[in-house]
Amino acid sequence: MSLTRLLVATGNAGKLREYREMMSDLPVEWLTLKDVGLYGMDVEETGDTFVANALLKAQAYSQASGLPTLADDSGIAVDALNGAPGVYSARYAPTEAECRTKLLGAVAEVPTALRTARFVCLIALVVPDVVTMYTEGRVEGAISYEERGTNGFGYDPIFLLPDGRTMAELSSEEKNSISHRGRALKKLQPFVECLVRNA
Amino acid sequence: MSLTRLLVATGNAGKLREYREMMSDLPVEWLTLKDVGLYGMDVEETGDTFVANALLKAQAYSQASGLPTLADDSGIAVDALNGAPGVYSARYAPTEAECRTKLLGAVAEVPTALRTARFVCLIALVVPDVVTMYTEGRVEGAISYEERGTNGFGYDPIFLLPDGRTMAELSSEEKNSISHRGRALKKLQPFVECLVRNA
Repeated sequence: MSLTRLLVATGNAGKLREYREMMSDLPVEWLTLKDVGLYGMDVEETGDTFVANALLKAQAYSQASGLPTLADDSGIAVDALNGAPGVYSARYAPTEAECRTKLLGAVAEVPTALRTARFVCLIALVVPDVVTMYTEGRVEGAISYEERGTNGFGYDPIFLLPDGRTMAELSSEEKNSISHRGRALKKLQPFVECLVRNA
Repeated sequence: MSLTRLLVATGNAGKLREYREMMSDLPVEWLTLKDVGLYGMDVEETGDTFVANALLKAQAYSQASGLPTLADDSGIAVDALNGAPGVYSARYAPTEAECRTKLLGAVAEVPTALRTARFVCLIALVVPDVVTMYTEGRVEGAISYEERGTNGFGYDPIFLLPDGRTMAELSSEEKNSISHRGRALKKLQPFVECLVRNA
Protein backbone atom coordinates (compact mmCIF):
# COMPACT_ATOMS: atom_id res chain seq x y z
CA MET A 1 0.00 0.00 0.00
CA SER A 2 1.71 3.14 -1.22
CA LEU A 3 1.15 6.27 0.76
CA THR A 4 2.43 8.71 -1.78
CA ARG A 5 -1.14 9.91 -2.30
CA LEU A 6 -3.32 10.84 0.62
CA LEU A 7 -6.90 12.07 0.58
CA VAL A 8 -7.89 14.80 3.02
CA ALA A 9 -11.63 14.30 3.34
CA THR A 10 -12.86 17.76 4.14
CA GLY A 11 -14.84 20.25 2.16
CA ASN A 12 -13.91 22.96 4.65
CA ALA A 13 -11.34 25.31 3.09
CA GLY A 14 -10.11 26.46 6.50
CA LYS A 15 -9.36 22.92 7.67
CA LEU A 16 -7.73 21.99 4.38
CA ARG A 17 -5.37 24.94 4.61
CA GLU A 18 -4.40 23.89 8.14
CA TYR A 19 -3.68 20.32 7.05
CA ARG A 20 -1.50 21.42 4.15
CA GLU A 21 0.42 23.91 6.24
CA MET A 22 1.11 21.42 9.00
CA MET A 23 2.01 18.37 6.94
CA SER A 24 3.84 20.15 4.14
CA ASP A 25 7.19 18.48 4.98
CA LEU A 26 6.01 15.04 3.99
CA PRO A 27 6.64 13.72 0.46
CA VAL A 28 2.96 13.10 -0.05
CA GLU A 29 0.58 14.23 -2.76
CA TRP A 30 -2.35 15.75 -0.87
CA LEU A 31 -5.64 15.20 -2.64
CA THR A 32 -8.95 16.83 -1.85
CA LEU A 33 -12.45 15.43 -2.29
CA LYS A 34 -12.70 17.58 -5.40
CA ASP A 35 -9.47 16.09 -6.81
CA VAL A 36 -10.90 12.58 -6.58
CA GLY A 37 -14.42 13.46 -7.77
CA LEU A 38 -16.08 12.93 -4.38
CA TYR A 39 -16.90 16.53 -3.52
CA GLY A 40 -20.65 15.92 -3.76
CA MET A 41 -20.56 12.72 -1.67
CA ASP A 42 -22.18 13.32 1.69
CA VAL A 43 -21.41 11.20 4.73
CA GLU A 44 -23.96 11.54 7.50
CA GLU A 45 -22.34 12.26 10.84
CA THR A 46 -24.57 9.95 12.83
CA GLY A 47 -22.06 9.19 15.59
CA ASP A 48 -22.52 10.61 19.05
CA THR A 49 -18.77 11.10 19.62
CA PHE A 50 -16.08 12.95 17.69
CA VAL A 51 -14.16 9.72 17.16
CA ALA A 52 -17.20 7.88 15.78
CA ASN A 53 -17.83 10.66 13.24
CA ALA A 54 -14.17 10.98 12.23
CA LEU A 55 -14.04 7.21 11.63
CA LEU A 56 -17.34 7.23 9.70
CA LYS A 57 -15.98 9.86 7.32
CA ALA A 58 -12.50 8.40 6.90
CA GLN A 59 -13.91 4.92 6.27
CA ALA A 60 -16.56 6.07 3.79
CA TYR A 61 -14.24 8.27 1.69
CA SER A 62 -11.43 5.74 1.86
CA GLN A 63 -13.77 3.03 0.59
CA ALA A 64 -15.08 5.29 -2.18
CA SER A 65 -11.63 6.42 -3.30
CA GLY A 66 -9.47 3.41 -2.50
CA LEU A 67 -6.99 5.88 -1.01
CA PRO A 68 -5.48 6.33 2.44
CA THR A 69 -7.80 8.94 3.87
CA LEU A 70 -7.66 11.48 6.68
CA ALA A 71 -10.85 12.87 8.14
CA ASP A 72 -11.54 14.77 11.28
CA ASP A 73 -14.39 15.65 13.51
CA SER A 74 -14.00 18.55 15.79
CA GLY A 75 -16.01 20.97 17.80
CA ILE A 76 -16.29 23.05 20.87
CA ALA A 77 -17.47 21.71 24.22
CA VAL A 78 -18.75 24.26 26.73
CA ASP A 79 -18.79 23.13 30.37
CA ALA A 80 -21.75 25.34 31.34
CA LEU A 81 -23.74 23.68 28.53
CA ASN A 82 -22.77 20.15 29.61
CA GLY A 83 -20.41 19.77 26.67
CA ALA A 84 -22.73 21.24 24.02
CA PRO A 85 -22.61 22.00 21.15
CA GLY A 86 -19.99 19.17 20.95
CA VAL A 87 -20.46 16.94 17.92
CA TYR A 88 -23.19 19.31 16.75
CA SER A 89 -20.87 22.35 16.64
CA ALA A 90 -20.94 22.65 12.85
CA ARG A 91 -24.72 22.21 12.76
CA TYR A 92 -25.51 24.43 15.73
CA ALA A 93 -26.88 27.14 13.43
CA PRO A 94 -27.08 27.61 9.63
CA THR A 95 -23.87 29.67 9.22
CA GLU A 96 -20.60 30.00 11.12
CA ALA A 97 -21.51 33.56 12.12
CA GLU A 98 -24.91 32.44 13.42
CA CYS A 99 -23.26 29.59 15.35
CA ARG A 100 -21.10 32.12 17.19
CA THR A 101 -24.04 34.43 17.90
CA LYS A 102 -26.15 31.52 19.19
CA LEU A 103 -23.37 30.30 21.48
CA LEU A 104 -22.71 33.79 22.86
CA GLY A 105 -26.44 34.00 23.62
CA ALA A 106 -26.52 30.57 25.26
CA VAL A 107 -23.85 31.57 27.77
CA ALA A 108 -24.87 35.25 28.12
CA GLU A 109 -25.86 34.78 31.77
CA VAL A 110 -22.90 32.54 32.65
CA PRO A 111 -20.30 34.30 34.84
CA THR A 112 -16.72 34.57 33.62
CA ALA A 113 -15.27 31.87 35.87
CA LEU A 114 -17.76 29.29 34.58
CA ARG A 115 -17.37 29.98 30.85
CA THR A 116 -14.66 27.33 30.44
CA ALA A 117 -14.67 25.40 27.19
CA ARG A 118 -12.38 23.37 24.98
CA PHE A 119 -11.84 22.74 21.33
CA VAL A 120 -11.56 19.02 20.62
CA CYS A 121 -10.35 17.46 17.38
CA LEU A 122 -10.27 13.80 16.44
CA ILE A 123 -8.33 12.91 13.32
CA ALA A 124 -8.83 9.47 11.81
CA LEU A 125 -6.57 7.87 9.21
CA VAL A 126 -7.78 4.83 7.32
CA VAL A 127 -5.27 2.99 5.13
CA PRO A 128 -7.36 0.45 3.21
CA ASP A 129 -6.61 -3.17 4.19
CA VAL A 130 -3.80 -2.04 6.48
CA VAL A 131 -4.67 0.01 9.51
CA THR A 132 -7.13 2.43 11.06
CA MET A 133 -5.88 4.94 13.59
CA TYR A 134 -6.93 8.11 15.33
CA THR A 135 -5.48 10.80 17.53
CA GLU A 136 -7.05 13.48 19.69
CA GLY A 137 -6.02 17.07 20.29
CA ARG A 138 -7.50 19.55 22.75
CA VAL A 139 -7.07 23.16 23.63
CA GLU A 140 -8.52 24.59 26.83
CA GLY A 141 -10.05 28.06 27.01
CA ALA A 142 -13.26 29.94 27.66
CA ILE A 143 -16.09 31.59 25.77
CA SER A 144 -15.56 35.33 25.35
CA TYR A 145 -18.28 38.00 25.65
CA GLU A 146 -17.92 39.21 22.08
CA GLU A 147 -16.17 38.35 18.83
CA ARG A 148 -12.56 39.37 18.38
CA GLY A 149 -10.03 38.69 15.64
CA THR A 150 -10.31 37.90 11.96
CA ASN A 151 -8.08 34.87 11.46
CA GLY A 152 -9.24 31.28 11.75
CA PHE A 153 -12.83 30.23 11.22
CA GLY A 154 -15.83 28.78 13.06
CA TYR A 155 -15.81 29.50 16.78
CA ASP A 156 -12.25 30.93 16.79
CA PRO A 157 -13.36 34.59 17.30
CA ILE A 158 -15.21 33.75 20.55
CA PHE A 159 -12.72 31.25 22.02
CA LEU A 160 -10.49 32.91 24.61
CA LEU A 161 -7.07 31.42 25.26
CA PRO A 162 -5.37 31.64 28.68
CA ASP A 163 -3.25 34.57 27.39
CA GLY A 164 -6.39 36.68 26.77
CA ARG A 165 -6.36 36.52 22.99
CA THR A 166 -9.07 34.76 21.04
CA MET A 167 -8.10 31.93 18.73
CA ALA A 168 -8.92 34.26 15.80
CA GLU A 169 -6.26 36.71 16.96
CA LEU A 170 -3.45 34.20 16.40
CA SER A 171 -1.45 34.02 13.19
CA SER A 172 -2.05 30.77 11.32
CA GLU A 173 1.42 29.62 12.37
CA GLU A 174 0.66 30.26 16.05
CA LYS A 175 -2.73 28.61 15.73
CA ASN A 176 -1.31 25.50 14.07
CA SER A 177 1.17 25.04 16.90
CA ILE A 178 -1.39 25.13 19.72
CA SER A 179 -4.77 24.32 18.19
CA HIS A 180 -6.72 21.14 18.78
CA ARG A 181 -6.29 20.20 15.13
CA GLY A 182 -2.58 21.04 15.24
CA ARG A 183 -2.07 18.89 18.33
CA ALA A 184 -3.97 15.94 16.88
CA LEU A 185 -2.03 16.19 13.62
CA LYS A 186 1.29 16.40 15.46
CA LYS A 187 0.49 13.13 17.21
CA LEU A 188 -0.44 11.53 13.91
CA GLN A 189 2.53 12.77 11.93
CA PRO A 190 5.11 10.10 12.99
CA PHE A 191 2.73 7.37 11.84
CA VAL A 192 2.10 9.04 8.50
CA GLU A 193 5.88 9.31 8.10
CA CYS A 194 6.17 5.66 9.01
CA LEU A 195 3.65 4.78 6.29
CA VAL A 196 5.46 6.93 3.73
CA ARG A 197 8.78 5.27 4.53
CA ASN A 198 7.25 1.81 4.16
CA ALA A 199 5.40 2.74 0.95
CA MET B 1 5.75 8.39 25.57
CA SER B 2 8.23 5.56 25.80
CA LEU B 3 7.27 2.30 24.21
CA THR B 4 9.94 0.16 25.77
CA ARG B 5 7.24 -1.53 27.87
CA LEU B 6 4.11 -2.87 26.26
CA LEU B 7 1.19 -4.60 27.91
CA VAL B 8 -0.41 -7.53 26.11
CA ALA B 9 -3.88 -7.61 27.58
CA THR B 10 -4.82 -11.23 27.30
CA GLY B 11 -5.28 -13.92 29.88
CA ASN B 12 -5.22 -16.56 27.15
CA ALA B 13 -1.91 -18.44 27.24
CA GLY B 14 -2.24 -19.53 23.62
CA LYS B 15 -2.66 -15.97 22.37
CA LEU B 16 0.14 -14.67 24.57
CA ARG B 17 2.54 -17.27 23.16
CA GLU B 18 1.61 -16.22 19.61
CA TYR B 19 2.22 -12.54 20.37
CA ARG B 20 5.61 -13.19 21.89
CA GLU B 21 6.71 -15.48 19.05
CA MET B 22 5.65 -13.01 16.39
CA MET B 23 6.95 -9.79 17.90
CA SER B 24 10.12 -11.17 19.45
CA ASP B 25 12.39 -9.06 17.20
CA LEU B 26 11.30 -5.79 18.76
CA PRO B 27 13.29 -4.26 21.62
CA VAL B 28 10.23 -4.17 23.83
CA GLU B 29 9.59 -5.54 27.28
CA TRP B 30 6.37 -7.52 26.93
CA LEU B 31 4.23 -7.39 30.04
CA THR B 32 1.22 -9.52 30.82
CA LEU B 33 -1.83 -8.63 32.90
CA LYS B 34 -0.28 -10.69 35.70
CA ASP B 35 2.97 -8.70 35.50
CA VAL B 36 1.10 -5.44 36.08
CA GLY B 37 -1.29 -6.78 38.73
CA LEU B 38 -4.39 -6.63 36.53
CA TYR B 39 -4.98 -10.32 36.00
CA GLY B 40 -8.25 -10.27 37.98
CA MET B 41 -9.60 -7.18 36.23
CA ASP B 42 -12.47 -8.12 33.99
CA VAL B 43 -13.53 -6.03 31.00
CA GLU B 44 -17.00 -6.83 29.72
CA GLU B 45 -17.01 -7.43 25.99
CA THR B 46 -20.23 -5.56 25.36
CA GLY B 47 -19.42 -4.55 21.78
CA ASP B 48 -21.22 -6.14 18.86
CA THR B 49 -18.15 -6.10 16.62
CA PHE B 50 -14.62 -7.46 17.01
CA VAL B 51 -13.19 -3.97 16.71
CA ALA B 52 -15.47 -2.54 19.42
CA ASN B 53 -14.43 -5.28 21.85
CA ALA B 54 -10.72 -5.03 21.03
CA LEU B 55 -10.89 -1.27 21.64
CA LEU B 56 -12.88 -1.68 24.88
CA LYS B 57 -10.21 -3.99 26.26
CA ALA B 58 -7.18 -2.04 25.07
CA GLN B 59 -8.64 1.22 26.41
CA ALA B 60 -9.63 -0.20 29.80
CA TYR B 61 -6.30 -1.96 30.48
CA SER B 62 -4.30 0.95 29.13
CA GLN B 63 -6.16 3.31 31.43
CA ALA B 64 -5.68 1.00 34.43
CA SER B 65 -1.97 0.43 33.76
CA GLY B 66 -0.92 3.69 32.14
CA LEU B 67 0.95 1.56 29.60
CA PRO B 68 0.72 1.22 25.83
CA THR B 69 -1.59 -1.75 25.54
CA LEU B 70 -2.38 -4.34 22.91
CA ALA B 71 -5.65 -6.25 23.04
CA ASP B 72 -7.43 -8.35 20.51
CA ASP B 73 -10.81 -9.72 19.84
CA SER B 74 -11.11 -12.62 17.53
CA GLY B 75 -13.44 -15.38 16.59
CA ILE B 76 -14.80 -17.59 13.92
CA ALA B 77 -17.60 -16.57 11.55
CA VAL B 78 -19.50 -19.37 9.83
CA ASP B 79 -21.38 -18.40 6.68
CA ALA B 80 -24.09 -21.05 7.12
CA LEU B 81 -24.77 -19.60 10.59
CA ASN B 82 -24.95 -15.99 9.31
CA GLY B 83 -21.58 -15.19 10.83
CA ALA B 84 -22.14 -16.89 14.21
CA PRO B 85 -20.60 -17.49 16.65
CA GLY B 86 -18.65 -14.32 15.72
CA VAL B 87 -17.97 -12.06 18.68
CA TYR B 88 -19.46 -14.77 20.91
CA SER B 89 -16.91 -17.40 19.82
CA ALA B 90 -15.17 -17.58 23.20
CA ARG B 91 -18.50 -17.69 25.06
CA TYR B 92 -20.26 -20.13 22.71
CA ALA B 93 -19.98 -22.92 25.30
CA PRO B 94 -18.29 -23.25 28.71
CA THR B 95 -15.01 -24.82 27.52
CA GLU B 96 -12.99 -24.74 24.30
CA ALA B 97 -13.72 -28.43 23.72
CA GLU B 98 -17.47 -27.85 24.19
CA CYS B 99 -17.33 -24.86 21.81
CA ARG B 100 -15.94 -27.13 19.09
CA THR B 101 -18.51 -29.86 19.75
CA LYS B 102 -21.36 -27.36 19.70
CA LEU B 103 -20.19 -25.82 16.41
CA LEU B 104 -19.73 -29.23 14.76
CA GLY B 105 -23.31 -29.99 15.84
CA ALA B 106 -24.66 -26.69 14.54
CA VAL B 107 -23.35 -27.39 11.03
CA ALA B 108 -23.84 -31.17 11.08
CA GLU B 109 -26.46 -31.01 8.31
CA VAL B 110 -24.64 -28.39 6.24
CA PRO B 111 -23.12 -29.83 3.03
CA THR B 112 -19.38 -29.53 2.43
CA ALA B 113 -19.56 -26.73 -0.14
CA LEU B 114 -21.53 -24.50 2.25
CA ARG B 115 -19.34 -24.97 5.36
CA THR B 116 -17.19 -21.95 4.55
CA ALA B 117 -15.97 -19.91 7.49
CA ARG B 118 -13.26 -17.48 8.47
CA PHE B 119 -11.17 -16.65 11.45
CA VAL B 120 -11.15 -12.89 12.09
CA CYS B 121 -8.82 -11.05 14.46
CA LEU B 122 -8.84 -7.39 15.39
CA ILE B 123 -5.83 -6.12 17.29
CA ALA B 124 -6.09 -2.73 18.98
CA LEU B 125 -3.16 -0.73 20.28
CA VAL B 126 -3.77 2.18 22.63
CA VAL B 127 -0.85 4.44 23.47
CA PRO B 128 -2.15 6.72 26.24
CA ASP B 129 -2.49 10.37 25.14
CA VAL B 130 -0.92 9.59 21.78
CA VAL B 131 -2.78 7.30 19.42
CA THR B 132 -5.30 4.51 19.11
CA MET B 133 -5.01 2.11 16.21
CA TYR B 134 -6.27 -1.23 15.02
CA THR B 135 -5.61 -3.76 12.31
CA GLU B 136 -7.59 -6.73 11.03
CA GLY B 137 -6.46 -10.15 9.88
CA ARG B 138 -8.53 -12.90 8.30
CA VAL B 139 -8.02 -16.46 7.20
CA GLU B 140 -10.56 -18.20 4.99
CA GLY B 141 -11.45 -21.85 5.41
CA ALA B 142 -14.28 -24.21 6.26
CA ILE B 143 -15.64 -26.17 9.20
CA SER B 144 -14.42 -29.79 9.19
CA TYR B 145 -16.53 -32.85 10.09
CA GLU B 146 -14.39 -33.85 13.04
CA GLU B 147 -11.48 -32.61 15.13
CA ARG B 148 -7.97 -33.10 13.81
CA GLY B 149 -4.58 -31.94 15.05
CA THR B 150 -3.25 -31.07 18.49
CA ASN B 151 -1.50 -27.71 17.99
CA GLY B 152 -3.20 -24.35 18.40
CA PHE B 153 -6.23 -23.81 20.58
CA GLY B 154 -9.91 -22.89 20.42
CA TYR B 155 -11.52 -23.74 17.09
CA ASP B 156 -8.21 -24.64 15.38
CA PRO B 157 -8.89 -28.43 15.30
CA ILE B 158 -12.13 -28.00 13.32
CA PHE B 159 -11.02 -25.21 10.95
CA LEU B 160 -10.03 -26.63 7.56
CA LEU B 161 -7.57 -24.68 5.44
CA PRO B 162 -7.64 -24.76 1.62
CA ASP B 163 -4.75 -27.31 1.67
CA GLY B 164 -6.88 -29.85 3.58
CA ARG B 165 -5.14 -29.54 6.94
CA THR B 166 -6.85 -28.12 9.99
CA MET B 167 -5.34 -25.09 11.69
CA ALA B 168 -4.34 -27.41 14.58
CA GLU B 169 -2.20 -29.48 12.21
CA LEU B 170 0.13 -26.56 11.47
CA SER B 171 3.34 -25.96 13.37
CA SER B 172 3.21 -22.78 15.44
CA GLU B 173 5.58 -21.16 12.94
CA GLU B 174 3.29 -22.04 10.02
CA LYS B 175 0.25 -20.91 11.95
CA ASN B 176 1.79 -17.55 12.87
CA SER B 177 2.57 -16.85 9.22
CA ILE B 178 -0.96 -17.44 7.91
CA SER B 179 -3.30 -17.05 10.87
CA HIS B 180 -5.76 -14.22 11.39
CA ARG B 181 -3.83 -13.08 14.47
CA GLY B 182 -0.51 -13.36 12.61
CA ARG B 183 -1.83 -11.29 9.73
CA ALA B 184 -3.26 -8.60 11.99
CA LEU B 185 0.01 -8.44 13.95
CA LYS B 186 2.07 -8.25 10.78
CA LYS B 187 0.07 -5.18 9.73
CA LEU B 188 0.55 -3.61 13.14
CA GLN B 189 4.27 -4.32 13.46
CA PRO B 190 5.62 -1.35 11.43
CA PHE B 191 3.68 1.04 13.66
CA VAL B 192 4.93 -0.58 16.84
CA GLU B 193 8.45 -0.29 15.42
CA CYS B 194 7.73 3.34 14.62
CA LEU B 195 6.68 3.94 18.24
CA VAL B 196 9.76 2.15 19.57
CA ARG B 197 12.04 4.25 17.36
CA ASN B 198 10.37 7.46 18.52
CA ALA B 199 10.38 6.38 22.18
